[in-house]
Amino acid sequence: MKRNLFITFEGPEGAGKSTVLQQIVKRMQEEKIEVLATREPGGIEIAEKIREVILNPAHTAMNERAEALLYAAARSQHFYEKVLPALQKGKLVLCDRFIDSSLAYQGYARGIGIDEVLAINEFAIGKRLPDITILFDIEPEVGLARIQKHSSREVNRLDVESLAFHNKVREGYQEVIKRYPERIKVVNADQSLEQVVEEVWNILTKVLNEMK
Amino acid sequence: MKRNLFITFEGPEGAGKSTVLQQIVKRMQEEKIEVLATREPGGIEIAEKIREVILNPAHTAMNERAEALLYAAARSQHFYEKVLPALQKGKLVLCDRFIDSSLAYQGYARGIGIDEVLAINEFAIGKRLPDITILFDIEPEVGLARIQKHSSREVNRLDVESLAFHNKVREGYQEVIKRYPERIKVVNADQSLEQVVEEVWNILTKVLNEMK
Repeated sequence: MKRNLFITFEGPEGAGKSTVLQQIVKRMQEEKIEVLATREPGGIEIAEKIREVILNPAHTAMNERAEALLYAAARSQHFYEKVLPALQKGKLVLCDRFIDSSLAYQGYARGIGIDEVLAINEFAIGKRLPDITILFDIEPEVGLARIQKHSSREVNRLDVESLAFHNKVREGYQEVIKRYPERIKVVNADQSLEQVVEEVWNILTKVLNEMK
Repeated sequence: MKRNLFITFEGPEGAGKSTVLQQIVKRMQEEKIEVLATREPGGIEIAEKIREVILNPAHTAMNERAEALLYAAARSQHFYEKVLPALQKGKLVLCDRFIDSSLAYQGYARGIGIDEVLAINEFAIGKRLPDITILFDIEPEVGLARIQKHSSREVNRLDVESLAFHNKVREGYQEVIKRYPERIKVVNADQSLEQVVEEVWNILTKVLNEMK
């Protein structure tokens, strides 16, 4: 049985996406589902190099259009080199952040426009959108407080943006949900890890069972 | 008097664009025209870093969409950081290669499609196309032979493409001319340097005189 779904996890910083993703992968492996867990740039050399340019704190003069194009370029390479081949082999792919991050961050929060950013990202991935997207919703204050508690995690250029920016990102995600109400499933991320994992697992198994 | 025209030089490898551009700049300076001569990435740090990713010969696995997005990103940064401020100060800007290179190389020769590549490039530069474009037309064989004669010039990833590819680039430029017959002026580059400079100079002074 092929279960080659393309599933993405989205949400603001500190929403716990990555931790939950690891737990979900573990459960899937227990269920003998072949799964590829990845995140951009995903160890893809060209995409890693692009990421270095984007996240270099010295590059404060980067204009927002160049930034959006760089994210789209790294996404394209990661998608065609890693995600698509796995889907073609019948694997389920779980990706930590994808196109909706660009729509919320660059399209809405940076003010370029969701439609414009969607267009360059559809160019990047040949219009192959995820099948299902889990959106981790959380108050920006709560998410940021979680990041600051985990001092081991490296702070990057996006973390140091103001709280106002992070509030805009949340609004951006709400706009994205309006466009893709079928694809995007919202999960309340302000619960215990166990509760969030359970909620995500229930959504995914429902979809997988519908595929049988 | 402001003469803030945005002029681009286009054409295949070995057409002599850069040499002619230097001569034109010299003449303009003699005429006391304030001019900025540039080329992508133009010493713009972020754009230089992007260029390194594109032209690294080790990156043969780069997909053509990622490549097109990277060119657009570098273009955006160079345009907003260097070209646009110069135009706003009333300078004439001469740029060696710009959007039409992407339309001919990535859009046509790589087969992505001119419309699609135009869209991401319009995103990159806020739809600000050049005022005048000089297209240096030459048989690919002649252009490539010129490059091989100049062994001092560093050979990059694009130079090692096949002759068939360079023929496609020429066809691509012909398609671009059809879309912008007013903006693009074609010059026969298979003449002596003096003749080409004279032809380009006549085109540009005609345009500048019309602005008076």
